[in-house]
Amino acid sequence: MTEQTGTQTPIELRSDNAAGVAPEILDAIARANTGSALAYGGDAVTEELHTVVQEVFEHPGARVFPVTSGTAANALAISAITPPWGAVLCHESAHILNAEGGATSLLGAGAVVKGLAGANSLIDPASLQAALDATRWGDPHHSQPSVLSFTQPSDRGAIYTPSELSELTAIAKTRDLRVHLDGARLANAVAALDCAPADVTWRAGVDVLSLGATKNGAISSEAIVAFDERIAAELVYRTKRAGHVMSKMRFQSAQLIAYLTDGLWLRLAANSNARMGELVGGLAALEPYGVRLTNRPDVNLAFVELPEAAADALESADVRYYRLGVERARFVTSWQTTADEITGVLGRLASALVSDRPSSTAQ
Amino acid sequence: MTEQTGTQTPIELRSDNAAGVAPEILDAIARANTGSALAYGGDAVTEELHTVVQEVFEHPGARVFPVTSGTAANALAISAITPPWGAVLCHESAHILNAEGGATSLLGAGAVVKGLAGANSLIDPASLQAALDATRWGDPHHSQPSVLSFTQPSDRGAIYTPSELSELTAIAKTRDLRVHLDGARLANAVAALDCAPADVTWRAGVDVLSLGATKNGAISSEAIVAFDERIAAELVYRTKRAGHVMSKMRFQSAQLIAYLTDGLWLRLAANSNARMGELVGGLAALEPYGVRLTNRPDVNLAFVELPEAAADALESADVRYYRLGVERARFVTSWQTTADEITGVLGRLASALVSDRPSSTAQ
Amino acid sequence: MTEQTGTQTPIELRSDNAAGVAPEILDAIARANTGSALAYGGDAVTEELHTVVQEVFEHPGARVFPVTSGTAANALAISAITPPWGAVLCHESAHILNAEGGATSLLGAGAVVKGLAGANSLIDPASLQAALDATRWGDPHHSQPSVLSFTQPSDRGAIYTPSELSELTAIAKTRDLRVHLDGARLANAVAALDCAPADVTWRAGVDVLSLGATKNGAISSEAIVAFDERIAAELVYRTKRAGHVMSKMRFQSAQLIAYLTDGLWLRLAANSNARMGELVGGLAALEPYGVRLTNRPDVNLAFVELPEAAADALESADVRYYRLGVERARFVTSWQTTADEITGVLGRLASALVSDRPSSTAQ
Amino acid sequence: MTEQTGTQTPIELRSDNAAGVAPEILDAIARANTGSALAYGGDAVTEELHTVVQEVFEHPGARVFPVTSGTAANALAISAITPPWGAVLCHESAHILNAEGGATSLLGAGAVVKGLAGANSLIDPASLQAALDATRWGDPHHSQPSVLSFTQPSDRGAIYTPSELSELTAIAKTRDLRVHLDGARLANAVAALDCAPADVTWRAGVDVLSLGATKNGAISSEAIVAFDERIAAELVYRTKRAGHVMSKMRFQSAQLIAYLTDGLWLRLAANSNARMGELVGGLAALEPYGVRLTNRPDVNLAFVELPEAAADALESADVRYYRLGVERARFVTSWQTTADEITGVLGRLASALVSDRPSSTAQ
Repeated sequence: MTEQTGTQTPIELRSDNAAGVAPEILDAIARANTGSALAYGGDAVTEELHTVVQEVFEHPGARVFPVTSGTAANALAISAITPPWGAVLCHESAHILNAEGGATSLLGAGAVVKGLAGANSLIDPASLQAALDATRWGDPHHSQPSVLSFTQPSDRGAIYTPSELSELTAIAKTRDLRVHLDGARLANAVAALDCAPADVTWRAGVDVLSLGATKNGAISSEAIVAFDERIAAELVYRTKRAGHVMSKMRFQSAQLIAYLTDGLWLRLAANSNARMGELVGGLAALEPYGVRLTNRPDVNLAFVELPEAAADALESADVRYYRLGVERARFVTSWQTTADEITGVLGRLASALVSDRPSSTAQ
Repeated sequence: MTEQTGTQTPIELRSDNAAGVAPEILDAIARANTGSALAYGGDAVTEELHTVVQEVFEHPGARVFPVTSGTAANALAISAITPPWGAVLCHESAHILNAEGGATSLLGAGAVVKGLAGANSLIDPASLQAALDATRWGDPHHSQPSVLSFTQPSDRGAIYTPSELSELTAIAKTRDLRVHLDGARLANAVAALDCAPADVTWRAGVDVLSLGATKNGAISSEAIVAFDERIAAELVYRTKRAGHVMSKMRFQSAQLIAYLTDGLWLRLAANSNARMGELVGGLAALEPYGVRLTNRPDVNLAFVELPEAAADALESADVRYYRLGVERARFVTSWQTTADEITGVLGRLASALVSDRPSSTAQ
Repeated sequence: MTEQTGTQTPIELRSDNAAGVAPEILDAIARANTGSALAYGGDAVTEELHTVVQEVFEHPGARVFPVTSGTAANALAISAITPPWGAVLCHESAHILNAEGGATSLLGAGAVVKGLAGANSLIDPASLQAALDATRWGDPHHSQPSVLSFTQPSDRGAIYTPSELSELTAIAKTRDLRVHLDGARLANAVAALDCAPADVTWRAGVDVLSLGATKNGAISSEAIVAFDERIAAELVYRTKRAGHVMSKMRFQSAQLIAYLTDGLWLRLAANSNARMGELVGGLAALEPYGVRLTNRPDVNLAFVELPEAAADALESADVRYYRLGVERARFVTSWQTTADEITGVLGRLASALVSDRPSSTAQ
Repeated sequence: MTEQTGTQTPIELRSDNAAGVAPEILDAIARANTGSALAYGGDAVTEELHTVVQEVFEHPGARVFPVTSGTAANALAISAITPPWGAVLCHESAHILNAEGGATSLLGAGAVVKGLAGANSLIDPASLQAALDATRWGDPHHSQPSVLSFTQPSDRGAIYTPSELSELTAIAKTRDLRVHLDGARLANAVAALDCAPADVTWRAGVDVLSLGATKNGAISSEAIVAFDERIAAELVYRTKRAGHVMSKMRFQSAQLIAYLTDGLWLRLAANSNARMGELVGGLAALEPYGVRLTNRPDVNLAFVELPEAAADALESADVRYYRLGVERARFVTSWQTTADEITGVLGRLASALVSDRPSSTAQ
């Protein structure tokens, strides 16, 4: 353990949720504060947001519903495409299955969520096919698979390519499942793939999308984007009765416009991704000391095994990260993470590992 | 109709929801944007908010849950105090019964809402007593009254005094009903009554409160305040699974702290109330021209009958307000309304009435 | 009060629910108990039931779902024709609004039920029209009227004629409402009207029907009859996941077949109606003694005002009926009620009224 | 394939659900058809049922709620012991997870169901402990385990001993989970264990029980038995609002009384078990021909692998059973299965296997 505890500047790698608000987005809020405006989305800013989303996603029929949490975006989007007796298929590590307190079953009137297998938290097409094959279609004893929900990037930070997505959605559509994408970090995936947003959404078969902005620089601003008029028609009611239509929606819409304008969302995400690249590169050099990456870090998440004493030391050295077990850690970079911070983390970790060595062998 | 159409500055009286954000609150958001913070309320700002609420409401056990809409605050608060087979009693004009798309039944797992009568949209104690007397208690055919929800000020802008509230809650408690207050405009009531916030909440028998801030200068910021640990314990889960726990909650909490600090909420509300006082005073002078106030304007809402041609002319003169029928209008002042605007409205209305006169008599 | 208390045979007029099982129906159960059969409706008896229902209702596309309570039939039928954000319009005295513990909101995922006015517990067309006119269509703040549910006969024992029904459903269909009929006592209405079952159901615009049999001689056997394939397709799932698909369904289906075969249901109902006719005739003769009929007794229910002492005496004379207030009573005849019993009731009531007279005047 | 197709008497081994009604139970229905009785359980027969259940289960506080399906019994019982944000833990093969169309999530207001591992479809205590250890208690992102539900006998026909049950419930109670038992075939387990009903229910830590009777000789009659007054108090409302309170409940109660009186339920179950014992014994002799038992047949279910041609031939020989795959079959005996039928099945199977042999080897 180092003696610098408390004297170093803390470095935040717990979650991109812990980051602050991008200045462009804060400015947009302030700029929206002029004059009065109809509440509940009947304002000019929200109207403009529809146009921006249609342009960014190259889909003239897209409709957007600003909400304030990813759980709301996911559960409401899914509720509009599953009957209450449906089953929602997702990866067994998916946020909707493990980390939303049953929101999909609540807002989906009792619909259930089932996990599928696959490496890197990406759904394996064979696993999806097997789930469909095992279904007793039309037998009401059995929840009927009705939605495929995938997470892009996955909860372990891996990305589906557009063709991988299309393969999955094609399987799903053989049984008329609708497709939802949980895009809490969609910007990171689009930035990493350097593709059009449409390529990983509607062109790949996605019917409705949870578009995250909060983790990437906005204030509790997410959006549901529907690529189908019937889904949008339901969401008008579903968002309201779940308490997810903000009265001063223009301040939500203004954030999303700023986010999607001039590629800000992709620039912010590109920073997260680049910083993670530097971190991962540095970690590789520490393999001889017992540091091992356990995920495929396509975007801004790294899952790492490291010696317990080094993990303790890193914590003491004011590097903030999540410990998922005795020797397991998660590091997440954000739009705000700097190259200096990554250098700092790697330096503090190297110190910890080196200083840890002798004491380890002494035991 | 006047020829000035489009050349005058519009005056906003449709809704206090249409107003902007108070500068103190916008500043608070910007100030909160320093460093990183744990998501989902695990931050220092949200912790401070609990203390602020406990002080303002003089209740050391109060717990606060920031949400982003009044519908969310109401339906979630009520869901924590009613069993699914319960009936929620409120005034027949209440927002929860008429304007939340069934949110209470959704989040209350099928609980139902029933309207009671009473002048000025205030619940008549006799009506409450009659509803309780008519109940077949313990008979599962009949939804069991479990919650009394009142709106302070009422949907017609009238206020309950603390003793009126206590009378109602005392009746409710004879049958073990829990008590919810919809305080979307609570600041206006507290300012008008010049009482302690506790006097119209827990001291008057309220168990859980929807505290509005959005209509009075915040950005889609409301809060549930629970005065009972068991209610708070449920809300931890209920807010999350309904998608109402914002990840960057500190920006919500910062708004609420600014709102409740140094009496800002009451100063903002006092402005709305004072401007309404001026408007009502001016309208009284127009009675001879067919203008008639139809509610008791205790706070910032006026419901008015006026000649159709005058209503048209007022609209053309860029005064924005809601027309509820051919000759019925609603005017709402906000924290942002100025004395000059009230003067302007009254002037434009007087012009309209006068210019309308001849043509009326000509018919 | 008479001295015969306890020595007379009790006469049951509390409810047709209190009656026993018709011998033909009991026999049908026994006859169905041969061999084995696939569970959950995959049996030959249930298949035959579909044909019987199609014939009786003259609708080749009708599908039938046996359930075991009227609440189940109503709430499930309605859940298949309303979106969760819908409002179900019914008479303010309707069973679904007042006596099903919120079942429609539970199984309808938070849909709400609203009462309309009308004499004799029959919905007044003007009241329906007014409710539709007052709706802010497309505004998600407001539960959208989606279903018209009427009760035939009504909860006060009055009947809609086919043309009255058609008038109501025509109004409903101007706004695309679907139509549900609560036919807990449908046999009594059809018998009284001497019409075809189709005349008061699909030919009058009904989309889905709760067909009661329990009150009229079966064992907890009701059925949902859907006149639309899409409704039937939903009910396959909705019945199962609410626990309303009986595994040995053939015993339910056998009852319903017996009930609908050779007019048994109408003969049983005709007895109830005829006995009520006799009772009402006899009560008219007692008007001078303070007895007053307060409903229009089109079928087998009478609501009566009578002196308190007479009401007490009638109870003591082993006549079982419901007292709805100090001087208000409800009498219901059933398939099992005999002419002798009606004579007996009238006799005991006459005795009570006469013996009550002197003591009354002595006060 | 044999030439007798169609000429032999069919033998029913698909499901105990396919069996008929025991004569004692049919008689009880007929005997209950005397006089009139209050509806909805307010009758003397239902009152007697409470006493019978209290005696049979040796628990003076037990309350019983007759329902008409196992799905209703399970989902309603569980809904009374889980909060909406709870997770119900059961074996991954459990009926509530796989074969009730999401009923627990519907009636449990969005509660979720999670599967645990274990041989013979019996929950492994280590699997339960691991699930509890992995839970982030108090974190609302995560559905909180609130109920342990086990199936006795299991869906693969194996039995927990009383001490095995106690071990599981003791683990559950360390985290304050409530315990539900799905006893769709409880009689078979009690008969096989030759224990007191209390030994596998409340004495082993069960709070609420689904007591099956339908599979064992009744007409769609199941019951929820609550061993806790608070659970019973909720079920009064929960059963009604889900449409599961039959108006002529006495006919349900009469069946259950007959079932539980003088050990009828155990005699009927003992027959199923004994016939399965004979079947299993006979199958063992056919192992050389490729027949292999794949479950532990503690009660009346056998899961068997057998050559495809033999499976086809058995079907053609009018033995009714479920084919779960190409060479996998399920056989279920019932209260009605006779020793002759078992001899017949074994004979037909032996014929099929022998006649199949040459053709197999010829290939």
